[in-house]
Amino acid sequence: MSMSIITVSREFGSGGREVGKRLADELGYAYYDREIVTAIAQKTQLDEGYVASALDGGMFRGIPVHFGRTFSYSGTLMANTTKLFVEQHKIIRELAERGTCVIVGRAANAILEEYHPFNLFVYADMEAKVKRCMDRAPEGEQLSEREMIRHIKKVDADRAKYYEMFSDTRWGAKEGYHLCVNTTGANIKALVPMIAQYAKNWMETNQK
Amino acid sequence: MSMSIITVSREFGSGGREVGKRLADELGYAYYDREIVTAIAQKTQLDEGYVASALDGGMFRGIPVHFGRTFSYSGTLMANTTKLFVEQHKIIRELAERGTCVIVGRAANAILEEYHPFNLFVYADMEAKVKRCMDRAPEGEQLSEREMIRHIKKVDADRAKYYEMFSDTRWGAKEGYHLCVNTTGANIKALVPMIAQYAKNWMETNQK
Repeated sequence: MSMSIITVSREFGSGGREVGKRLADELGYAYYDREIVTAIAQKTQLDEGYVASALDGGMFRGIPVHFGRTFSYSGTLMANTTKLFVEQHKIIRELAERGTCVIVGRAANAILEEYHPFNLFVYADMEAKVKRCMDRAPEGEQLSEREMIRHIKKVDADRAKYYEMFSDTRWGAKEGYHLCVNTTGANIKALVPMIAQYAKNWMETNQK
Repeated sequence: MSMSIITVSREFGSGGREVGKRLADELGYAYYDREIVTAIAQKTQLDEGYVASALDGGMFRGIPVHFGRTFSYSGTLMANTTKLFVEQHKIIRELAERGTCVIVGRAANAILEEYHPFNLFVYADMEAKVKRCMDRAPEGEQLSEREMIRHIKKVDADRAKYYEMFSDTRWGAKEGYHLCVNTTGANIKALVPMIAQYAKNWMETNQK
């Protein structure tokens, strides 16, 4: 198999991004995450923060203030967001065409189905996710535990809605992935080499 | 960590037993599957086939003919099956106490929770499971594809019911396992060494 693509889907706070980054480093693959947002912002000449927020479920969270004056504006926003999704779709496929890579999030597993990527899902117990997020929150931006749980659930609910626009399978249902890794209490750095070898071997030997 | 226990839960037809056996070989661990049934049969002086069938969900499938004459007999069967479960519970814990091992099925992950085992779940697409079962069926015992699907679903439904007697979590829900492996199209033999290393490393580095 000449093209080796690993997609990493992940629950918010599970360390999935770290897994993805380390996987790419371990295997010497290109790594795409925030890079996708930057590319879309450049192409559409929209603000990168706006693009990120729209793609990360802004569409489902209601209309941002600066777009939200009238009903017709909300239609415009919907059209704009749809354009961003289409753009993202195109860019993800362009990146896949370039060859071996790790792509984090953005329903890449569904979008790239015909490329037969190796699809990884990273998850953890709520307690572990809250702790991870708390530990990483910038000084002065701490949420209470309750707020953090609500935030985590909201982000994942948005991810699920986004994913389910591209796929008939349920986001996070193990059937949609080749390997599901629970990071609760785990030492991610120590485990990534085995995940990398597993993915590589799977891509070399998968009978499909 | 002195005690290394790996539990393997699996969908019927997913190749989970093969994964478990190969894991044990790879790591040089003891392997317990059918051995548990044999031990219970010896202890209770019941027929091994009867023990296997009772433990594999006979309790949920109604009363076997030779026990099923009267209502009071069904009460007796229930009591007998409960005894078998208790015996199985004891034996699984005795085996765990002996040290490093791989235990397949029997809700060992729930029963051995306090030993902090590494819990693996093995699954596959229905199509792959049907194919695997068809390929392995003895001459003259072939089911139709439709019958096979029904059989697979029934076995797994029984496993789920059995598991949920010991656990508050849902059988097969990824949250209850440390690693979930999809064997669809996969070369199990080639992948087991990585699963073995992952499990070993997890047991050595898990922070819990």
